[in-house]
Amino acid sequence: NPAFVSTSESDLSLQSKIEMLLDDLKWDDKGLVVATAQNVDTGTILMQGFANKEAIVRTATQRKATFYSRSRSQLWTKGETSNNFINIHDIFFDCDRDSIIYLGKPDGPACHTGSATCFHTSLDDLIDDPKNVKHRLASSTLYSLENTISQRKAELAVPQTGKPSWTKRLLLDNKLLCSKIREEADELCRTSEEGEDKSRTASEMADLVYHAMVFLAVQGVKLEDVFEHLRERFAQSGIEEKKNRARKVDQSAITKD
Amino acid sequence: NPAFVSTSESDLSLQSKIEMLLDDLKWDDKGLVVATAQNVDTGTILMQGFANKEAIVRTATQRKATFYSRSRSQLWTKGETSNNFINIHDIFFDCDRDSIIYLGKPDGPACHTGSATCFHTSLDDLIDDPKNVKHRLASSTLYSLENTISQRKAELAVPQTGKPSWTKRLLLDNKLLCSKIREEADELCRTSEEGEDKSRTASEMADLVYHAMVFLAVQGVKLEDVFEHLRERFAQSGIEEKKNRARKVDQSAITKD
Ligand SMILES: [Zn+2]
Ligand SMILES: [Zn+2]
Ligand SMILES: [Zn+2]
Ligand SMILES: [Zn+2]
Ligand SMILES: [Zn+2]
Ligand SMILES: [Zn+2]
Ligand SMILES: [Zn+2]
Ligand SMILES: [Zn+2]
Ligand SMILES: [Zn+2]
Repeated sequence: NPAFVSTSESDLSLQSKIEMLLDDLKWDDKGLVVATAQNVDTGTILMQGFANKEAIVRTATQRKATFYSRSRSQLWTKGETSNNFINIHDIFFDCDRDSIIYLGKPDGPACHTGSATCFHTSLDDLIDDPKNVKHRLASSTLYSLENTISQRKAELAVPQTGKPSWTKRLLLDNKLLCSKIREEADELCRTSEEGEDKSRTASEMADLVYHAMVFLAVQGVKLEDVFEHLRERFAQSGIEEKKNRARKVDQSAITKD
Repeated sequence: NPAFVSTSESDLSLQSKIEMLLDDLKWDDKGLVVATAQNVDTGTILMQGFANKEAIVRTATQRKATFYSRSRSQLWTKGETSNNFINIHDIFFDCDRDSIIYLGKPDGPACHTGSATCFHTSLDDLIDDPKNVKHRLASSTLYSLENTISQRKAELAVPQTGKPSWTKRLLLDNKLLCSKIREEADELCRTSEEGEDKSRTASEMADLVYHAMVFLAVQGVKLEDVFEHLRERFAQSGIEEKKNRARKVDQSAITKD
């Protein structure tokens, strides 16, 4: 374990502090807890593994998601072979302290298949037609919609027959799309100016989000990039950033000493 | 197991079909896989448990997240005592088939503490100050920002000293807020009209999302409600809804027979 051979005194004290805190976790009979890596900007679950105490200490200090491989009986840092590290922003554990979340930003696809997430097979799809199951990512509403819109965009590459869907019309007509975005922003504002109820506000916000997402698809911009912008600007009072800087100092001290 | 006592023939065939498909999963030495429940609209990880084959069959047919309790050696459906069921929209498993995601809509808080998620303790917070750790939910960028904005709104209840932050000024001045939302929608559109690059588009979209989120906070509307509206409208070609209907028929057949 060369990274810890020549740690400075303050690093050692950080490490033993974390170890002490981790004593409270409910380790299973093999000394493990379930460890789930989640994309900090999209909430997508990237992969699930297990972690022992050493794996969590390393993840907390070096800020790359690290697991314990039960088959190889050793620590492994996601990305050590693929270079697709998961850069840690926060670590959470659950109320009965036997499960942790590594909330982080992946450098690339989490799955060896090239998928963003290892969770890309739907049991419901299998039940419907076991012989014709496509890769489909486990993603929440916004990213399912983003995926649907980009499918519609891809379909435009081949000649269209019949009346195009509303999404396709918007994808093809930037003037129409922009007039809709301005209109929906106005309609959202008018829900308060005209004293409409919450459900109307939610519905107008949904209109605005959808049309703006079609715009992003036209421009080739991913929602994840937008939310990364937001995170960088609004990191909770800068606390998270401060912590990451502090940890990076620790880490470079480890490397240099 | 009364629910399965008097199943009809078609239910039995669905059940055995699912059982056959689940034969391919990589069950551990106790016949379990890790099962993680995730909010379909927000991506928030709600809780993590384990599932045996019977738990997954029941989840897939009855559409309520069901686990296997290792301590009580029995199936349990989340919500059977609290009434906070997790209504299943999709079930995914990972590339090596030893972990599943229950993607669903919770009827209420997932945690017995009343938290939306069981993951509400940050290891980084503990490291910083173990004696002063607050409940903080594991959430992705958008929901962290939503939480920050609603904190700013709550702070307005007590008398303010000094210059208010931009968020607070917007929260207090609906005319300013609405003029900003209309302006940011316009700026977003102009990134294409004036041929700006992707990074500019992402940045303007971030501006629009932030200001619209402040508006939602003023109106008391949650992002989750907005995304629920979106999901209802854009369910992938209605496939998901069709499936849910089909399963509900199965279930009512089970109950009535
Ligand atoms: Zn737990
Ligand atoms: Zn994988
Ligand atoms: Zn309209
Ligand atoms: Zn509208
Ligand atoms: Zn796995
Ligand atoms: Zn809990
Ligand atoms: Zn502006
Ligand atoms: Zn702007
Ligand atoms: Zn609705």
